[in-house]
Amino acid sequence: MGSFRFEATGIEGIPEVMAGDDIAAFILEASHQGNISSASRDILVLAHKVISKSEGRIVRLSAVTPSPFARNIAQQTGKDPRVVEIILGESRRIVRMARGILVVETHHGFVCANGGVDSSNVGPGVVALLPKDPDASAEKIRRELQERVGAQLAVIISDSFGRPWREGTTDVAIGGAGLGPLIDYRGQKDNYGYEMKASLIAVADELAGAGELVLGKTRQVPVALIRGFCLVGTEGRGGQLIRPPESDIFR
Amino acid sequence: MGSFRFEATGIEGIPEVMAGDDIAAFILEASHQGNISSASRDILVLAHKVISKSEGRIVRLSAVTPSPFARNIAQQTGKDPRVVEIILGESRRIVRMARGILVVETHHGFVCANGGVDSSNVGPGVVALLPKDPDASAEKIRRELQERVGAQLAVIISDSFGRPWREGTTDVAIGGAGLGPLIDYRGQKDNYGYEMKASLIAVADELAGAGELVLGKTRQVPVALIRGFCLVGTEGRGGQLIRPPESDIFR
Repeated sequence: MGSFRFEATGIEGIPEVMAGDDIAAFILEASHQGNISSASRDILVLAHKVISKSEGRIVRLSAVTPSPFARNIAQQTGKDPRVVEIILGESRRIVRMARGILVVETHHGFVCANGGVDSSNVGPGVVALLPKDPDASAEKIRRELQERVGAQLAVIISDSFGRPWREGTTDVAIGGAGLGPLIDYRGQKDNYGYEMKASLIAVADELAGAGELVLGKTRQVPVALIRGFCLVGTEGRGGQLIRPPESDIFR
Repeated sequence: MGSFRFEATGIEGIPEVMAGDDIAAFILEASHQGNISSASRDILVLAHKVISKSEGRIVRLSAVTPSPFARNIAQQTGKDPRVVEIILGESRRIVRMARGILVVETHHGFVCANGGVDSSNVGPGVVALLPKDPDASAEKIRRELQERVGAQLAVIISDSFGRPWREGTTDVAIGGAGLGPLIDYRGQKDNYGYEMKASLIAVADELAGAGELVLGKTRQVPVALIRGFCLVGTEGRGGQLIRPPESDIFR
């Protein structure tokens, strides 16, 4: 069960992140330390790009030589052949390719446009890749934060994913630590005593979306603090949100 | 641009809704009137089921005679043939049918499991259908609330939708009034001066998800109040969140 109330706040004042930077320190500095406290069981939602930057998951386009296949796909989709080469490197399968859109399954198992390779908010001539292991990245940041504040908290790493059939993107949890990403009501009784069959809620994705609402794509606010949601401390990984192929009728 | 902070609260004390009930009055009663105010530009997220109940979109299974086709699909999917008959009545197209799952496109254009027909939290022997015109329902509730509180606010009607490739459901906005459902950053410059190409954010879906986090499937909290998000008053309909078929590579 969730809570009856939470608040989401964008953490301002986080500097531009570079490879090797200590993001936990940046977050604590920007949120004035004491703000993140044990009693509140805070959830931090981090735009994945700060993780990618700190982990050096940034590729300079001038260093990339596109293969003939990448050139071919680039021509069909109108993309930069070097970007396509990088996308293919992140992919284990092309799911759909049409009208300039390239939806792939990444090595992590995420199905998303361009394998998460992104040109925005990284600087000229470079692209950002998704973190190699977003759950491990979340767990690392979580441990570093917990050690310094002496409090239990949760970390979600988010990215904006498009969806079939619905316009626009919503942020989802590509990684997480310290929070069960799903709440399972299946088998529980509703208010009428009916046993629910389909109620499995992807709360980590809803929390990532709630975080996105206070982040900024055009201003530098890559971290949101969610306070009051009461599930922090339960175990879970963001990887649990990848639907297993055997139960996915859209693979 | 969104805001830097918002809070979401589940509104407790809303009674069981029946056909013809005045939901706006229920909400104001439960939230103690003055709580919803002009300055705060509140957003109310309503689980669609309260709308369906108030609009009489409830069907008694005993009144349904399944067609041979419905019986056939019922046998393949393990569903009640009368429920399948009702789902088919809500559908203009079957999108995918496999492993007991029936994903259809509704007459509204939503692509979702079972055409939104739902057995939970409605009582024994009946199912709830989606509202006939969720945007109109949202606009009606919004007008009724605004008249009584003399304040500008927004209404989102939500339902829990599954997603291909990702586990669990998230709540999305199937209807809305008083709020632009999408924020379009395309063409705007990021922090490095790069012109963003893909940044169209489905904020109404993220707000519906944020609302879900404080609702209750096993307790009677069908309405959430979101306060502090600053886009209330812009124009928009939930229908804008349906991706047009011509730009949807998954239709």
